[in-house]
Amino acid sequence: MNGFRWSKAEKIIAKEAFNNAYQRECNNIIKEIKEYKLKNPEDIWSLSKMLKEREKEINNIYDYRYSQLIFIFGILIKRGFLSIDELDGLSGDKIEQIKKLMSL
Amino acid sequence: MNGFRWSKAEKIIAKEAFNNAYQRECNNIIKEIKEYKLKNPEDIWSLSKMLKEREKEINNIYDYRYSQLIFIFGILIKRGFLSIDELDGLSGDKIEQIKKLMSL
Repeated sequence: MNGFRWSKAEKIIAKEAFNNAYQRECNNIIKEIKEYKLKNPEDIWSLSKMLKEREKEINNIYDYRYSQLIFIFGILIKRGFLSIDELDGLSGDKIEQIKKLMSL
Repeated sequence: MNGFRWSKAEKIIAKEAFNNAYQRECNNIIKEIKEYKLKNPEDIWSLSKMLKEREKEINNIYDYRYSQLIFIFGILIKRGFLSIDELDGLSGDKIEQIKKLMSL
């Protein structure tokens, strides 16, 4: 997967898809926070723990390096934060590789 | 401050005051979370950071050891989560010491 070359047009598509997925994932977390049952002191610490986990997860996934992007897009589609259609314009071999990852 | 002796009746008063202050402080944090401006991804990470700080603060302050209680009560009153009246029933020397700490 490291061998792919990215054209200028593909880089624009990739960056937009990446940013959109990030925004959606964060909107999801915001929704999760707003709906969090906060009644007792222990709810605060469990929310804090949840946010630490989300932060770690997000930092692990959203690693914008061209050598990682195909893999990341596969994950983001599987997680439901990106659709394959948003990657229209990437070369056939990249799309094929992403689809392979999606099917794993 | 380590030299104070606590009667059974004083221990009950102290425990209740301590628990009430903890509950109020946590209610305050819950209010803070509910009013937190959550619009952009960075708001999530700043909320997460704030909660980590609150957790550390709370763990530092709420240390229920009789050797620490006078000092803690002084802090809790200064922070506005406890009133001196709630400690009615503690011995005069303890109240005096707490008032001294409050005036610092």
